[in-house]
Amino acid sequence: MLIEEPKTKIDRIRQQLYIVIYGTNTKAGKLFDIFLLIFILLSVLAVMLESVKEIDDNYHSILLSAEWFFTILFSIEYILRIFSTKKPWKYIFSFYGIIDLLAILPMYLSFFITGSNLLTSVRALRLLRLFRVLKLANFVGEATNLKSALKASRPKIIVFLFTVLIIAMVVGTLMFLIEGPEAGFTSIPRGIYWTVVTLTTVGFGDIYPITPFGQFLAMFVMITGYGIIAVPTGIVSAEFAKQKSANKEDKSTKSKTVCPVCDESGHKPDAQFCFNCGEKIKI
Amino acid sequence: MLIEEPKTKIDRIRQQLYIVIYGTNTKAGKLFDIFLLIFILLSVLAVMLESVKEIDDNYHSILLSAEWFFTILFSIEYILRIFSTKKPWKYIFSFYGIIDLLAILPMYLSFFITGSNLLTSVRALRLLRLFRVLKLANFVGEATNLKSALKASRPKIIVFLFTVLIIAMVVGTLMFLIEGPEAGFTSIPRGIYWTVVTLTTVGFGDIYPITPFGQFLAMFVMITGYGIIAVPTGIVSAEFAKQKSANKEDKSTKSKTVCPVCDESGHKPDAQFCFNCGEKIKI
Amino acid sequence: MLIEEPKTKIDRIRQQLYIVIYGTNTKAGKLFDIFLLIFILLSVLAVMLESVKEIDDNYHSILLSAEWFFTILFSIEYILRIFSTKKPWKYIFSFYGIIDLLAILPMYLSFFITGSNLLTSVRALRLLRLFRVLKLANFVGEATNLKSALKASRPKIIVFLFTVLIIAMVVGTLMFLIEGPEAGFTSIPRGIYWTVVTLTTVGFGDIYPITPFGQFLAMFVMITGYGIIAVPTGIVSAEFAKQKSANKEDKSTKSKTVCPVCDESGHKPDAQFCFNCGEKIKI
Amino acid sequence: MLIEEPKTKIDRIRQQLYIVIYGTNTKAGKLFDIFLLIFILLSVLAVMLESVKEIDDNYHSILLSAEWFFTILFSIEYILRIFSTKKPWKYIFSFYGIIDLLAILPMYLSFFITGSNLLTSVRALRLLRLFRVLKLANFVGEATNLKSALKASRPKIIVFLFTVLIIAMVVGTLMFLIEGPEAGFTSIPRGIYWTVVTLTTVGFGDIYPITPFGQFLAMFVMITGYGIIAVPTGIVSAEFAKQKSANKEDKSTKSKTVCPVCDESGHKPDAQFCFNCGEKIKI
Repeated sequence: MLIEEPKTKIDRIRQQLYIVIYGTNTKAGKLFDIFLLIFILLSVLAVMLESVKEIDDNYHSILLSAEWFFTILFSIEYILRIFSTKKPWKYIFSFYGIIDLLAILPMYLSFFITGSNLLTSVRALRLLRLFRVLKLANFVGEATNLKSALKASRPKIIVFLFTVLIIAMVVGTLMFLIEGPEAGFTSIPRGIYWTVVTLTTVGFGDIYPITPFGQFLAMFVMITGYGIIAVPTGIVSAEFAKQKSANKEDKSTKSKTVCPVCDESGHKPDAQFCFNCGEKIKI
Repeated sequence: MLIEEPKTKIDRIRQQLYIVIYGTNTKAGKLFDIFLLIFILLSVLAVMLESVKEIDDNYHSILLSAEWFFTILFSIEYILRIFSTKKPWKYIFSFYGIIDLLAILPMYLSFFITGSNLLTSVRALRLLRLFRVLKLANFVGEATNLKSALKASRPKIIVFLFTVLIIAMVVGTLMFLIEGPEAGFTSIPRGIYWTVVTLTTVGFGDIYPITPFGQFLAMFVMITGYGIIAVPTGIVSAEFAKQKSANKEDKSTKSKTVCPVCDESGHKPDAQFCFNCGEKIKI
Repeated sequence: MLIEEPKTKIDRIRQQLYIVIYGTNTKAGKLFDIFLLIFILLSVLAVMLESVKEIDDNYHSILLSAEWFFTILFSIEYILRIFSTKKPWKYIFSFYGIIDLLAILPMYLSFFITGSNLLTSVRALRLLRLFRVLKLANFVGEATNLKSALKASRPKIIVFLFTVLIIAMVVGTLMFLIEGPEAGFTSIPRGIYWTVVTLTTVGFGDIYPITPFGQFLAMFVMITGYGIIAVPTGIVSAEFAKQKSANKEDKSTKSKTVCPVCDESGHKPDAQFCFNCGEKIKI
Repeated sequence: MLIEEPKTKIDRIRQQLYIVIYGTNTKAGKLFDIFLLIFILLSVLAVMLESVKEIDDNYHSILLSAEWFFTILFSIEYILRIFSTKKPWKYIFSFYGIIDLLAILPMYLSFFITGSNLLTSVRALRLLRLFRVLKLANFVGEATNLKSALKASRPKIIVFLFTVLIIAMVVGTLMFLIEGPEAGFTSIPRGIYWTVVTLTTVGFGDIYPITPFGQFLAMFVMITGYGIIAVPTGIVSAEFAKQKSANKEDKSTKSKTVCPVCDESGHKPDAQFCFNCGEKIKI
């Protein structure tokens, strides 16, 4: 027989905090995440406005206050996150943990290094949390599909990218030798930069061939780029098509219960405890 | 037993007008829509020509007369549309109703605000009516397919766009910090603008990196952009492929009768009245 | 019983010529087409070289002689084509007939209009004949597949292009109103030109937005363009996938006999006469 | 009964060397390839750095020494490769053999032709060997899939590219005639260059139309390019989708044993000797 250990009061507070801060399945947890997202958006906006000289000249003190307000808020949130979880180190070194730290650090660093506060716009990465909030809507299935389709096609895409880089190196060298510094191809790395710009069909036009032979090679590169754009698209399309049929089979057997503590889904319909973290599923 | 209410003469005129103006299944209705489209095209052409300085200098009065002619015509049509329908408010606040109003308003506003008449080229949106006229041909099925394929892939595309925007914010900030104002990255919003221009492989070339590290980051962004262009394509491709097979099953059971009043299709083969608006299907 | 009509000598010559000039299944016919293609390529090359000022200055007389040589050759071929076919008017007004005429006309016109001889490079279109020669290889199946896949997706693509054009008109007007002549948006047609350049992700950079609001709208247009690039790709992909499975079923029942006179394929295995032109299949 | 021929000592050394240099299935062979790749990368890096003027001015002698070091190393490797294989001519004229020679030749040529040593960056092509090393991971299946998908769609893509080139020739001529030298269209080849730049949606912006009619034609070209980008993508997507289902059937019957001498896979589960080169499979 399984006997639940008696919990101290601090443990209960900790778990309540955990469910609000990390969870998205209770009403309080949802509200917390929504307000967090709004604050992140506002703080990113403040940093952006500060970078525009005309606006910063007029409203510098307001923007700076706003930035400090959000930084202190996010610092409190960061401490609470460490306090409430059972495995603080796991959080600190997780993807989100590092981003959360990076989002507050530049502001404190600005005491020592001028201008570093602009780095706070790394906070935009915190908006990725949105996907956690969307977990409740049918968006989460889509995000998972996207992620697993990209994961499945990863080896193909790595082979592809590697081929692209080798092409870029060879063509970049040839263009450097053919065109020379007058046309802007001042070094092989710049030649490679031009090749990537061209192969990806971006085509800034800051560097372009001027000799007939260089233009001929450029045409060859462009048509190649045009042709190979088909490869990643084909890979991902085939992956999506495969997933689609796989999804159909899955749908019926999936349970929709989600653990309020660790957000794990896929529990058996009659499960009482989360198979991942051991907490009770229904509170 | 269902007894049709006796109709007054004005009711009959109203319904006849409705069938001609809104419907596309009678000969008169078709003719009305075709003439309307020609008039819209001509009026858009007049506005365009007026915006070209050399042409406007020579033919200003002719173009202005033409614009007023079309505006008055469209105003009469707008009033008739409100008069003939049973639910005028539904029309006024519908997508097409608002466009129809926007198409005539700027001309009248030009009495108060100079230059506002050029906004009449919003009339181009009225050309979307073309899709209603094409309903008769096999184009409509295609338009519906396109629409429902896009609708089905909407959540995936929103997740995708959101990811793109977060990437743009982070990369835009980094480029602003790396390149600085000399290279044109005068603020974070401009950095974001550059990132979107690059990620979408448009590459105007109005702003471009000049430092080696900036160019390295740019290469990374471009290859990423090249890779993720595959994602929406893959999504929509898979959706189309799915629809194709679904269509095969549907085709046999669909009835091709279309209500002359509300353009609703999908009636049962033996239906006498439109299931949507209650009007008789065969007049 | 079918009795073949006795043929006069000129009729026999005519038919022999027809098989050589129009057909690609006899050895002579194949050789004729290959030489024709080489001559077309050389003549196109001559016109191109003539357009390069540095080359034309030095070799004008040689290039001009070459052009006249090819023009007279193609004129003779044109007359023989008309002479040898049974339905000369059908040829004259066919796609290839018009191109063949356009390929020789500009040269004769150059007596009256200077410079019109450069139009002879329209001859490049004659290279499309290559597909007829390739009929013998397995290329023809692919060309047919490409053509029928594009044909099947035509209505969808028309709906798509039409939507793109309406977007271009509306956005072009807005950009003209927002940016004005200082940024290069001197008229609505130029605004439309810019929108198409941006929406198709070409991005020349000859015109680009400079106001913050214009850049914001531009970002919106670019992401839209990025998204809708998926639509035609998805359409064509689905079409190809469909064809692929259809092909599998077809392959076994197709006969590979090709009529030497009219190039029609798909005859019954035991057919004696071409079902299309009535000529004997095996000579 | 099969009797293995007695081998001389030099034959044994040769075979051991062969397995280390050409093979990737023994530990020594794997290590050899990994070090080779690192050396190739370093040597390519040295050439790149040499091409950057600022770096070359300061570290010329170091970079030159590094280049000579790698060149002598690769020369020794080249000789050992010829020595260890049984069919030296087959290696010398193989794809990798030619690249290996090209990777050392320019350095020796630099005694006679100044600057030719920069051509050594062709060494980047040697990095393609990476795919052989990756053979052990599941990358190789992907690389094979990519290759066979591209091979299968080759005829379709050739037909497609050919059509693109004919379009480029005709449009290039028209643009040259419409725009003329003022807009940068100084010759027909430059017009063709512009058309390819535009059709592939690269859009450098070094040449662009300035007349209204030229811009109209440009819009047409861009939308066409946008449309036909779908064709190669569709082809490759369909090919990948086909392969995916074919793969499923294959997987179960494939044996994973790889010959240590010739890297051939696909042996029967109970095979003792490689069916390709006759060497013992298990050493």
